[in-house]
Amino acid sequence: MAAARNEGNGEMATVDRWLLPDGIEEVLPPEAARIEAARRQVLDLFQRWGYEFVVTPHIEYLESLLTGAGQDLDLRTFKVIDPQTGRQMGFRADITPQVARIDAHTLRREGPNRLCYAGSVLHAQPRALTTSRSPIQLGAELYGDASPASDVEVISLLLEMLELAAVPDVHIDLGHVGIYRGLARAAGLSGEVEQQLFDALQRKAVDEVAALTESVPAELQKMLRALAELCGEREVLDLAQACLVEAPEDVHLALDELIAIADTLERRYPEVPLYFDLGELRGYHYHTGVVFAAFVPGVGQSIAQGGRYDDIGADFGRARPATGFSTDLKTLVTLGAMQLDEPEAGVWAPDNHDLYLWKAVRQLRGQNTRVVQALPGQDVSAAHEAGCDRQLVLNDGRWQVVPLAV
Amino acid sequence: MAAARNEGNGEMATVDRWLLPDGIEEVLPPEAARIEAARRQVLDLFQRWGYEFVVTPHIEYLESLLTGAGQDLDLRTFKVIDPQTGRQMGFRADITPQVARIDAHTLRREGPNRLCYAGSVLHAQPRALTTSRSPIQLGAELYGDASPASDVEVISLLLEMLELAAVPDVHIDLGHVGIYRGLARAAGLSGEVEQQLFDALQRKAVDEVAALTESVPAELQKMLRALAELCGEREVLDLAQACLVEAPEDVHLALDELIAIADTLERRYPEVPLYFDLGELRGYHYHTGVVFAAFVPGVGQSIAQGGRYDDIGADFGRARPATGFSTDLKTLVTLGAMQLDEPEAGVWAPDNHDLYLWKAVRQLRGQNTRVVQALPGQDVSAAHEAGCDRQLVLNDGRWQVVPLAV
Repeated sequence: MAAARNEGNGEMATVDRWLLPDGIEEVLPPEAARIEAARRQVLDLFQRWGYEFVVTPHIEYLESLLTGAGQDLDLRTFKVIDPQTGRQMGFRADITPQVARIDAHTLRREGPNRLCYAGSVLHAQPRALTTSRSPIQLGAELYGDASPASDVEVISLLLEMLELAAVPDVHIDLGHVGIYRGLARAAGLSGEVEQQLFDALQRKAVDEVAALTESVPAELQKMLRALAELCGEREVLDLAQACLVEAPEDVHLALDELIAIADTLERRYPEVPLYFDLGELRGYHYHTGVVFAAFVPGVGQSIAQGGRYDDIGADFGRARPATGFSTDLKTLVTLGAMQLDEPEAGVWAPDNHDLYLWKAVRQLRGQNTRVVQALPGQDVSAAHEAGCDRQLVLNDGRWQVVPLAV
Repeated sequence: MAAARNEGNGEMATVDRWLLPDGIEEVLPPEAARIEAARRQVLDLFQRWGYEFVVTPHIEYLESLLTGAGQDLDLRTFKVIDPQTGRQMGFRADITPQVARIDAHTLRREGPNRLCYAGSVLHAQPRALTTSRSPIQLGAELYGDASPASDVEVISLLLEMLELAAVPDVHIDLGHVGIYRGLARAAGLSGEVEQQLFDALQRKAVDEVAALTESVPAELQKMLRALAELCGEREVLDLAQACLVEAPEDVHLALDELIAIADTLERRYPEVPLYFDLGELRGYHYHTGVVFAAFVPGVGQSIAQGGRYDDIGADFGRARPATGFSTDLKTLVTLGAMQLDEPEAGVWAPDNHDLYLWKAVRQLRGQNTRVVQALPGQDVSAAHEAGCDRQLVLNDGRWQVVPLAV
């Protein structure tokens, strides 16, 4: 770790001033141009699906930021005191709750509402050891409709985004937190035990699951224990219907939703493998329904993830159904082979203060041509490095564009 | 002030959870789409001038962030401790020093280097009472050339940006910190007195300027005192040449630079009024040469500003000439009348799971058409609010786009 080398030094040596903290990155040319081009393409895709762009603040009062979110978001949030009010503020570690506030409080639209966003977030602690602490979060959220049609829409949009980004070999994991929640509620599990069981299921720690469900009525015990093993391809859903036949009504409703969503996705995207995991309750603690994530081979973390989080807006004065997803733009560009415009070549202009040269340069730029003008001491030998393939030369008293002599 | 109402409350009431801190804004539709469109247009303009895009981190070790910058940047910077290293970090309050580090240390190009950027910055304290604490800073920087040609280039680019943003009635203020610095050095002013005199000149506090220069040799005293009054239109430069005839060589060089820059700008942009102020040393303490700012009537603050800041890179291991400018994207959009594409209308699709409808929708979106699909319970009466002017209907077994019935 670069930073560890400086531990205990009050002052950085000159040579160290440029060191960035672990997990905090800058993006240089030409990679930055690719990031920007990808950002535009993805936002344009969201726009074509009817999602409207919003810009949320990088900093807010901590209570606003963490409302509706779980403890993990709290731990990941950098905190400072507002010198103007003395109140605690936080730097956004997740944009989703901010957009939920905009839907619930600020926009207050009656019907369904589609919003999208793109921006940096900061994580005080990385999600995993090798993960960035400064991802560029990009996402889309659909509010106001509680039906699986909305979940299907956002998962479809997620898949279109991954196709646009040309990320190969994507598969989707699907789950539904309502199945576990319904069983845990029926079993009367206390908050603490429910949390431990939740953790054990996430890790598929079958022995722990067995121990934690020991005092649960036999029928529910069997079903809770089955969750750890209900993972795999489509047949898992049939198996679940058989296993959970005695489950309470809300569990059946959840399973039916999951099946409806899977059916539509399979018809729309027959080429995308779907996996199901009824014990995996991935993502933030705010999820309430279907949860999903996109994976690619060789990458341990999901590359995009989302789910339903109804009622998050209640804390802002209006409970609204909500579903959506997010991704990290840098990951998308790194893993994908997105079709991005070739960097534009350009025209080299000499170091000359002739006003007619200036007018020729201005006219070319006005026609969307890239023009780089030489600075004192630079001659045409610098044109190639500046990415130019043509130059402006004075021919018969007129400035004309000609190819660069090779 | 909204925040003041909550002062002293440890907990926010539900109704207050959505309150944003003073000077921290969110941007909603359709304004956010305008901001995004303007961002793209300005970055494309920078690109056409040969400026390459970079993405700098939102957070860094404090020493890196503040290197080469002045005390005012320190005061404006939010600070936190990195939980991973225990070292102090800051949230960027200015992107310029970050880009200077990229030029000096990371890219290490030999010749001139043009970079541009766009991103949020955060100010712990606003610059002025009514100023945003979360501007979207947009800027362009030119490194590696110390000649006035670079200053002319960046000021020209600034003017093209303001023209693109259709900001009316712009005028430019020009100064040169080398004139004051040269006189103060010749007068042997100590750091503290120089700072006080600097402040007094900024405020054009003629009496204070007189008091602070009392013990300075008569010739230099006259010249330093004259600075407070050397402001106005072009004739100021002739006046300055007369007033400063006895000044040291470096003061003459500075004045000659300023004249050369003004001459070229006047030829290029005869319609843009130029004002000169030899006592105004606007901007950050890191400036070393020409300084400039764009103003419009009725707005007290400059709407874009910049200047030369040679050698800022020295602290990162490589001294490089540098000049550039920055602006706030939100201000630009608010004050300007930028030509932005009309929000695209779109096609309304009914709530129907027919796979052929899905294929029709997908095809339209693939052709860059905006399509909004109804959710359960929505009929075509919602199409107008969703910004659609056409709809997909089933005609003779085929999904076809027809105008929305009015």
